[in-house]
Amino acid sequence: MADYSFTLQQLADELGAVIQGDKECVIHSLGTLQSANAEQLAFIANPNYRKYLASTAAAAVILSPEDQAYYSGNAIVSPDPYLAYARVSRLFSSSEKYSQGVSPHAVIDQTAIVSDSAHIAAGAVISSHVVVADNVVIGPNVVVGEKCRIGAQSRLEANVTLYPDVHIGENCLVHSGAVLGADGFGFAKEKDNWVKISQLGGVRIGSHVEIGAGTTIDRGALEHTIIEDGVILDNQIQIAHNVKIGENSAIAGCTAIAGSTKIGNRCTIAGACGVTGHLDIADDVHITAMTLVTKSIRQPGAYSSGTGFMPHASWKKNVVRFRKLDELARRLKSVEDRIEEIKGS
Amino acid sequence: MADYSFTLQQLADELGAVIQGDKECVIHSLGTLQSANAEQLAFIANPNYRKYLASTAAAAVILSPEDQAYYSGNAIVSPDPYLAYARVSRLFSSSEKYSQGVSPHAVIDQTAIVSDSAHIAAGAVISSHVVVADNVVIGPNVVVGEKCRIGAQSRLEANVTLYPDVHIGENCLVHSGAVLGADGFGFAKEKDNWVKISQLGGVRIGSHVEIGAGTTIDRGALEHTIIEDGVILDNQIQIAHNVKIGENSAIAGCTAIAGSTKIGNRCTIAGACGVTGHLDIADDVHITAMTLVTKSIRQPGAYSSGTGFMPHASWKKNVVRFRKLDELARRLKSVEDRIEEIKGS
Amino acid sequence: MADYSFTLQQLADELGAVIQGDKECVIHSLGTLQSANAEQLAFIANPNYRKYLASTAAAAVILSPEDQAYYSGNAIVSPDPYLAYARVSRLFSSSEKYSQGVSPHAVIDQTAIVSDSAHIAAGAVISSHVVVADNVVIGPNVVVGEKCRIGAQSRLEANVTLYPDVHIGENCLVHSGAVLGADGFGFAKEKDNWVKISQLGGVRIGSHVEIGAGTTIDRGALEHTIIEDGVILDNQIQIAHNVKIGENSAIAGCTAIAGSTKIGNRCTIAGACGVTGHLDIADDVHITAMTLVTKSIRQPGAYSSGTGFMPHASWKKNVVRFRKLDELARRLKSVEDRIEEIKGS
Repeated sequence: MADYSFTLQQLADELGAVIQGDKECVIHSLGTLQSANAEQLAFIANPNYRKYLASTAAAAVILSPEDQAYYSGNAIVSPDPYLAYARVSRLFSSSEKYSQGVSPHAVIDQTAIVSDSAHIAAGAVISSHVVVADNVVIGPNVVVGEKCRIGAQSRLEANVTLYPDVHIGENCLVHSGAVLGADGFGFAKEKDNWVKISQLGGVRIGSHVEIGAGTTIDRGALEHTIIEDGVILDNQIQIAHNVKIGENSAIAGCTAIAGSTKIGNRCTIAGACGVTGHLDIADDVHITAMTLVTKSIRQPGAYSSGTGFMPHASWKKNVVRFRKLDELARRLKSVEDRIEEIKGS
Repeated sequence: MADYSFTLQQLADELGAVIQGDKECVIHSLGTLQSANAEQLAFIANPNYRKYLASTAAAAVILSPEDQAYYSGNAIVSPDPYLAYARVSRLFSSSEKYSQGVSPHAVIDQTAIVSDSAHIAAGAVISSHVVVADNVVIGPNVVVGEKCRIGAQSRLEANVTLYPDVHIGENCLVHSGAVLGADGFGFAKEKDNWVKISQLGGVRIGSHVEIGAGTTIDRGALEHTIIEDGVILDNQIQIAHNVKIGENSAIAGCTAIAGSTKIGNRCTIAGACGVTGHLDIADDVHITAMTLVTKSIRQPGAYSSGTGFMPHASWKKNVVRFRKLDELARRLKSVEDRIEEIKGS
Repeated sequence: MADYSFTLQQLADELGAVIQGDKECVIHSLGTLQSANAEQLAFIANPNYRKYLASTAAAAVILSPEDQAYYSGNAIVSPDPYLAYARVSRLFSSSEKYSQGVSPHAVIDQTAIVSDSAHIAAGAVISSHVVVADNVVIGPNVVVGEKCRIGAQSRLEANVTLYPDVHIGENCLVHSGAVLGADGFGFAKEKDNWVKISQLGGVRIGSHVEIGAGTTIDRGALEHTIIEDGVILDNQIQIAHNVKIGENSAIAGCTAIAGSTKIGNRCTIAGACGVTGHLDIADDVHITAMTLVTKSIRQPGAYSSGTGFMPHASWKKNVVRFRKLDELARRLKSVEDRIEEIKGS
């Protein structure tokens, strides 16, 4: 972590927050309540952590008005300490700072339009008719295909790949190994052989979107694959062709969304889920980890699939019964019928 | 999408198909029935879409003889409109066209043999004793390890990695971020420590194979990992060492196949499945999404695992019961026995 | 496979093992019992393969004292033939040998410290204040961020990405497409919008660690993400921020571990599993394929979730019943109560 230095007053001003204690207290970095040292700022966002307030060595703590009663040391008082922590964290960010300009080791097509304030790192390859806006950062060994557009303040980390005709909005962050615009998985069958369907659409990414490491977003078959503003995607997510993800939805790692499925706004999909193709998922749907969604969801709410985990020995016994669950249900019905007979006799 | 221009006659000739209506009608691109404009060709492959035929603005439609009754406009009549669409789509493909030859920014070992008609893009690294056949395209920042062979007309997109001793047949397409030939996950145990087993086999890919973005295919331990002709693999698939995938099988995104498993011909495996190691899967097996296969499958047919998804609240209740499903089955048996006793008494 | 040549005596000396038969027998490569030819050494580690001993064409076989009774040909006798095979396999490894030194096509920041015995391949980009120790190999097009440290004898294969502040111990192997140190998935919510939390921690990898192709290990939010000595990770694994994996644990392909979860020592997690966040998994826990772990595990042992796979038609019937499993259990209870009534009447 790089070395920084802010007074509590400077940080509170940044947040528009109130201070308890010494305004001149100097903060060099951030830490957790349990591990912070006397140069660090900690935060408490969950009442379960109140027990650590008494013993924390932190120089100061971001806390809610309710938690002031439990802590008499230096503090930044905020109605939403977690959000305040998020905001402050940016001031301590050690993300690589690049100078403006193009590395002599980058390869830029002469028809590409690159802002003077953009940075293009060594080994990057920028193809024909690409447009790179102000303050964009393109990391080492990134490849940008023909006719892509990258909006202002967006950043592509090292080894990102953009196929042709991918548009990225402003203030986006794309992590290493992500591949945007590869062909959707579209084939027609001719006897036993697969005949490739050329994928003629592109990819359209809104603004304020974050895309995780190794995530793949395929280009559309005829129309575009669309990621709307404010969407956040974790690592190793697979977004198939012609999917649309609505504004401010969040998807955790290793989830796969099959072709032409539309996800609404403000949805959250946990890790390692699968959503099959051609579905409509309503706004404000929340899907728990490793759920397989095979039908459209019309109502907001939480959805799940799977079995709980358990010791392998008992799991084996239960799984054997699951194989005959239909038979078991029929046997129960038969027992119920017999009891009715007995009662009636 | 690039701008193209074909008459309906030209497209029908390409397909060997019949025209209904104006043969000179000019097509500039492809669209869906619902969204196509007056310069676009649409298609109908599913009777559910017949309702859109009346209102489509498309210049022409690819349709089956059966659907002619529902549409009097310009049309290409084909017994398999989806296949016809696949064929026509290639004519409108905007995939990056490269000039022949080697970029001055590529690094080619002097012992590599590269066809004059091949294209090797900027940043590509071609190692010793590699053979690159006619009309091969190697994208930017691709790395090709020692002694690899790439067959005619095959294409490696940007940022593909080939370890040493990977052979790729003709007319293959490997998407960005794919890694072919990394070490299989083979270790022996010595007390608590893992002792690496050197992976001495290679990878052998047939012809007409497509490999998706971020897919990994490990090299074999002693013999090769094998992908046969006509196989199509979607994104982020994991193929472990010594797996063999039979001809014309198709695997959707995020599926993992463990070591030494053999998949037959013409199988389809949906997304996010797992197939454990050392299994034999017969020809013509179809596995639905997110299924875990733990035993060999000897009979063609469809196989599944998992529970359906449902609202989280009812799922929680059912999952609790699953934990005691064996007990529940025993209780049912006990009830059945008692009823027999009662009847007999 | 490259051509090698060892006498049985040389190999036995390497292993400290005993020979049966001709010590001067020359071995050129390794093979399986079933396929080895007269220049190859095979091994038998599983009694099920004894049937192949009679007919193997191998020049010699690594076998246990117990299996000597079944084979009279040339042999290396070892108490643990699989471990002996692992050790011998290294002698036949064809992994790419690089000369020492820095490729003229690599880009090295002038503040980086690179050992004279290290190799840095074409297209690699080494950022400021990086330290590369003795005998390190950095493959083509690898990107190493600021202030990373790579320990002696470690190897980064082609197209690996290290973000800033990633430390790798000695004798590690990181496969292509792996991304270490990307931002953890941390956001606070402000109304409908996600506010990014800067990820200020790094990644700390121990020694003798192997990391598979396409695996992603995120940097910590405030503290580091930690992989301890001797851990082996297969391909396409996702390790979220602040996870800790204990010594000598092994994780198979496509498994995802969510944020802040701690995995103990000597655990094995099979492929395609999910482990949710903020859990503690004890030492010596074994998790079977595609299990979802949602609670801490305090006891060593094997754990599982999911249903077995079965023909789709019967699966559909059972799944329908699972949806009403709670109701079914209630009906059974009711039946049991009625029988008690009948008996009591």
